[in-house]
Amino acid sequence: MKKIMNEASNIVEEMLSGLIKSYPDRVHRVGNSRVVAKNEKVEQVGLVSGGGSGHEPAHAGFIGNGMLSAAVLGDVFTSPTPDQVQTAIKEADQGKGVLLIVKNYTGDVLNFDMAKEMATMEEIEVESVIVDDDIAVENSTYTAGKRGVAGTVLVHKILGNAARNGASLKELKALGDQLVPTIKTIGVALRAATVPEVGKPGFELAEDEIEYGVGIHGEPGYRREKLQSSKVLAKELVSKILADYQEKPKEVGVLVNGMGGTPLMELFVFMNDVQQLLEQAAVKVTFHKVGNFMTSLDMQGLSLTMIDLTDTNWQEALESEVQTISW
Amino acid sequence: MKKIMNEASNIVEEMLSGLIKSYPDRVHRVGNSRVVAKNEKVEQVGLVSGGGSGHEPAHAGFIGNGMLSAAVLGDVFTSPTPDQVQTAIKEADQGKGVLLIVKNYTGDVLNFDMAKEMATMEEIEVESVIVDDDIAVENSTYTAGKRGVAGTVLVHKILGNAARNGASLKELKALGDQLVPTIKTIGVALRAATVPEVGKPGFELAEDEIEYGVGIHGEPGYRREKLQSSKVLAKELVSKILADYQEKPKEVGVLVNGMGGTPLMELFVFMNDVQQLLEQAAVKVTFHKVGNFMTSLDMQGLSLTMIDLTDTNWQEALESEVQTISW
Repeated sequence: MKKIMNEASNIVEEMLSGLIKSYPDRVHRVGNSRVVAKNEKVEQVGLVSGGGSGHEPAHAGFIGNGMLSAAVLGDVFTSPTPDQVQTAIKEADQGKGVLLIVKNYTGDVLNFDMAKEMATMEEIEVESVIVDDDIAVENSTYTAGKRGVAGTVLVHKILGNAARNGASLKELKALGDQLVPTIKTIGVALRAATVPEVGKPGFELAEDEIEYGVGIHGEPGYRREKLQSSKVLAKELVSKILADYQEKPKEVGVLVNGMGGTPLMELFVFMNDVQQLLEQAAVKVTFHKVGNFMTSLDMQGLSLTMIDLTDTNWQEALESEVQTISW
Repeated sequence: MKKIMNEASNIVEEMLSGLIKSYPDRVHRVGNSRVVAKNEKVEQVGLVSGGGSGHEPAHAGFIGNGMLSAAVLGDVFTSPTPDQVQTAIKEADQGKGVLLIVKNYTGDVLNFDMAKEMATMEEIEVESVIVDDDIAVENSTYTAGKRGVAGTVLVHKILGNAARNGASLKELKALGDQLVPTIKTIGVALRAATVPEVGKPGFELAEDEIEYGVGIHGEPGYRREKLQSSKVLAKELVSKILADYQEKPKEVGVLVNGMGGTPLMELFVFMNDVQQLLEQAAVKVTFHKVGNFMTSLDMQGLSLTMIDLTDTNWQEALESEVQTISW
């Protein structure tokens, strides 16, 4: 394992410290907690997300007006504890309640839920939206049902914009629940991630092999085969996602997300293929995003996310200006 | 070699196509050339940069008001031709002349210079600034003198802001020449990049080995040793850079740049160590930037750049808002 780090056991702490020192004008750490929060307080519903670390820039990179109020950082690939989430809730609350955006992993759902109960006892109104956009597999290593992956970032963006525009907690919860089923993601891995404290890759792929449907913690996908061209990968992911919609979308937003070890050049080549396929399928792409948003440490690979924008007014929210570290 | 691509010989073409399709509201391709340009025309001095591909998001990711007007994309690790650069110059010229920002590689310097002469014959006023921020080695595989690397992005930002604020071509040239010697960079590689058409890594490092001072095309550095902690890497790079200033800066801007295959988590851990060292050295860090800006395909590693901000007014330019794909 080759990583730029000091003690593996201290990596999240040092990353957090590096992050805070780099953007002191935008974000701060709440006490000694694992919570990063927006400096500027705005009277609106607070938006909190988080989860295990190792998915950077998710979620702290998406803190800012028009996106998240605060993010909670667990250890690598490990849910944050309920008290950490509660700290984030308290920090984010400006008297209008707090919405939690939670990726669908058993630990996350449980701990965010406990924090919600704890906060409710302190008379902070809290709701949560569970994101389960990964259509690759049902149930998985850490999940009952589908996993939550890169599509979560689109939920941050659209709910963040609505919150900034004055939506109430109830409205945000309803919008979130409406959004989630329209967002679908599948990933493909060329090389597994190595968790710093483990020191070896989470799974092995042969030198010419890929795996479709791998999760962002290296959870098993649905098929292994020889690495083929970007066009073939794109065809597989685009077809699977389009087939999963009950009705084929007329307009979509597309997010091509690198897994941490994939160069931007390859993401653009893949996006080019995705766009050609969608054009052939008469699906109009009205929003595009390419880069590293929800990574899996140093995993080589990418994920494709689509959001059905047909007959919605979410385009404006996706395009709205925000000042975050990483959107 | 595992890469998400189709034909290696077509990778730049497809990347360019994917880029243009993803950001049609911001940038366009000039005809069928290898030039990407800003949609919005502004009456100011045009700023053009470029070079071989494989360093994404440099340079096309930095097109936007307050940064570049246009970027020229050569083949992977290959200088763009003079006629391509000339196309960019013509596109960028709004009657106030064009400044070329060129990384110091023999091919780039030659071809940008020829384009400058060609444009001058067509009565477009052109000046150029050569960036040679890599202090790791003197002369190198493709370079007479020092190489131009990640610090180039800071030159884009500061000159881009000055151009937006109405600086003349002469003033921009003078500012560029003043800026360059204040910017110093060194890189460290953990794993070499693989050029798609070559199919194997540019050099070999043992499983526990790193190389200090490697260039963004895999040019040799100055020392190999066993991989040590981030603190040790940071100490090496910080000391070398500080020692290279004739007078120790009181205030600096710091850019921690990933080489393409390095997760953001590790860049933040490294930044944390850099900041501690600079604090100990009584050097104040007034500007920070962490991410992938000047990559080397899938190289694993990073570079550290400092810019001496003591007694300058460049801080504002570095912090000024821009709408680019990747700043």
